[in-house]
Amino acid sequence: MREIMVVGVGAGDPEHVTVQAVNAINRVDVFFMLDKGEVKQELIDLRHEILTRYATSRPYRVVRGQDPDRDRTSAAYAEAVDDWRRRRADVCLRMIDSLGPDETGAFLVWGDPVLYDSTLAILDDLLARGAEFDVQVIPGISSVSTLAARHRVPLNQVGRPVQITTGRRLAAEWPAGVDDVVVMLDAQTAFTQHTDHEADIYWGAYLGTPDEILIAGPLAEVADRIVAARAEARARKGWIMDTYLLRRNP
Amino acid sequence: MREIMVVGVGAGDPEHVTVQAVNAINRVDVFFMLDKGEVKQELIDLRHEILTRYATSRPYRVVRGQDPDRDRTSAAYAEAVDDWRRRRADVCLRMIDSLGPDETGAFLVWGDPVLYDSTLAILDDLLARGAEFDVQVIPGISSVSTLAARHRVPLNQVGRPVQITTGRRLAAEWPAGVDDVVVMLDAQTAFTQHTDHEADIYWGAYLGTPDEILIAGPLAEVADRIVAARAEARARKGWIMDTYLLRRNP
Ligand SMILES: C[S@@+](CC[C@H](N)C(=O)[O-])C[C@H]1O[C@@H](n2cnc3c(N)ncnc32)[C@H](O)[C@@H]1O
Ligand SMILES: C[S@@+](CC[C@H](N)C(=O)[O-])C[C@H]1O[C@@H](n2cnc3c(N)ncnc32)[C@H](O)[C@@H]1O
Repeated sequence: MREIMVVGVGAGDPEHVTVQAVNAINRVDVFFMLDKGEVKQELIDLRHEILTRYATSRPYRVVRGQDPDRDRTSAAYAEAVDDWRRRRADVCLRMIDSLGPDETGAFLVWGDPVLYDSTLAILDDLLARGAEFDVQVIPGISSVSTLAARHRVPLNQVGRPVQITTGRRLAAEWPAGVDDVVVMLDAQTAFTQHTDHEADIYWGAYLGTPDEILIAGPLAEVADRIVAARAEARARKGWIMDTYLLRRNP
Repeated sequence: MREIMVVGVGAGDPEHVTVQAVNAINRVDVFFMLDKGEVKQELIDLRHEILTRYATSRPYRVVRGQDPDRDRTSAAYAEAVDDWRRRRADVCLRMIDSLGPDETGAFLVWGDPVLYDSTLAILDDLLARGAEFDVQVIPGISSVSTLAARHRVPLNQVGRPVQITTGRRLAAEWPAGVDDVVVMLDAQTAFTQHTDHEADIYWGAYLGTPDEILIAGPLAEVADRIVAARAEARARKGWIMDTYLLRRNP
C-alpha cells in the first residue's frame, strides 16, 4: 500500500521540527509541494531548508503541483469554493499518482497539520473518491504554541478554557464564555474592535523566523502600535503572518 | 545571569521532542525534577529516557524536589491552594538556587508548557518575589496535537473555532458558541453527560506511549465503550491520562 505522510514542520523555525518528523522525512520517496498563487517565496525556502538540513539519508524526488486559482468574484460562492476544492484535490491526486506501488509520499505542512490546514480534508476527499493509500499524521509545533512560548505566557488561565478562532469571527463578536482567545487568519486586525474590553494582547508576526516581531500589553494601549507595526512590516516584506492571544480578567 | 529553560518534551512519545529541545537540553547544567506525590513512575521514566537519549554532549546534574502535599480537606479552599502554591514555589526556588551564577537549569515539561501546566506561573511568582533569572520557553507537542494526529482529524472544522477546556467545565455544560471541544483533565468522564448531542468523539489515552488506546465514533454509540476501556486501563495501570475531541455538526 502507498503511504502518505502529513508532516508538521513548525511555523517558521526549522529547529521546531521533531525527531519523529526527521525520521519520517528520511523514509520519504517523494515530497509533494503545492505552490500557492501568492509569492511567499520565504515559505517555500523554509521547506527547502528543512529538506536540505534533515532529508540526508537517501535520495528523494520532489513533485510540484500548482494550487488552482479560486474564483472570488463568483456570485455562487459555495459552488465556487466546492469547485476550487475539487480542482485542488485533483492536483493532489495527480501528484500522489506519481508514487510507485510501495512508495511513501509526504506533504510538509506549515505549523501543526491539525490546525487550520486543508491537507487532511483533501486526502479524505480523495479517499472518499476511491483513491487508495494509508495516511499518517505527524504533529508539529503550531504558530499558537510558538506565540505563547515566545511571550512566555500560558495559553489558558488556571482551570479555564481557551478558544482558538479566526479574525473573521472575532470581528463579529468576542466569543461567548471565554476570556482567553487565540486568533489566526486575521487580515483585518479584528482586535481593534475590542479595545473597550479590559484585556491584554500578546501579538506575534513571522514567529520563529529572523523577522519575528513581538508586541504585548494592555489591548487599548498597544492596539495602535500593533496596527502600525503590522502595516509597516507587511509593506516591507509583501506578506505577513501574525497571530495573537487576547486575555481578559475573568 | 542564570537561565531557566522550560522545555516541552511531548506528551508520551520521546520522538516528539524537537530539534530545538534537543539542542537546549545539551546546554543544560542542572535538570530540575519535581516528584509528584502520585506514583506515576512511567512519567518519571520518560523524562529519564529523554535525558539518556538526547542529553549526550556534556555532563549534567539532576536536582530533585518534592511536590508538597495539598490540603484537600481544608474548609478554606482558596487559602489552602494559595498556601500550597507558595510551598511549591519554595521547593522550586531551592532547586533553582543550586545553580551557579552563569549556569543554565531546565524543567522538562510534559506536552507543551503553555497548556495546563503550572511551571510558568511558578517562575512568575518567584520573579515577582525578587528572584533573578532569565526564562526561555521551548514549545512542545501537546497531548491535544497528538490526539488529533493519531485520529488523523483536524482540531477545527473549516473556518470554525475550537475550544480547549477541562472535564469539570464540560460537566457543567457544553461550551457556548463552539461545536468543537477538546477536553483535558477529565477525571469524571464528562462526555457521558452529552450523549444527547449529535456529536462524534475522538478519544485517546496514554497517547504516544506503547499503551496508547484510541476510540472514535458517534458519541452516543461509543460512550459506554470508552467508559469501560478507561476503567479497565486505569485499574490495570494504576493511573490514566486521557483527552478527547467532541465534534458536533454545525
Ligand atoms: C492557514 S493557517 C495555518 C496554521 C498552521 N497550521 C499552524 O499550525 O500554525 C495560517 C495562519 O496561521 C498563523 N501563522 C502561521 N505561521 C505563523 C507565523 N510564523 N507567525 C505568526 N502567525 C503564523 C497566522 O494566523 C496565519 O494566518
Ligand atoms: C496537567 S495537563 C498537562 C497537559 C500538557 N501540558 C500537554 O500539553 O499535553 C494533564 C492533562 O493532559 C492530558 N494528557 C497529557 N498527556 C496525555 C497523554 N499522553 N495521553 C492523553 N492525555 C494526556 C490529559 O487530559 C491530562 O489530564
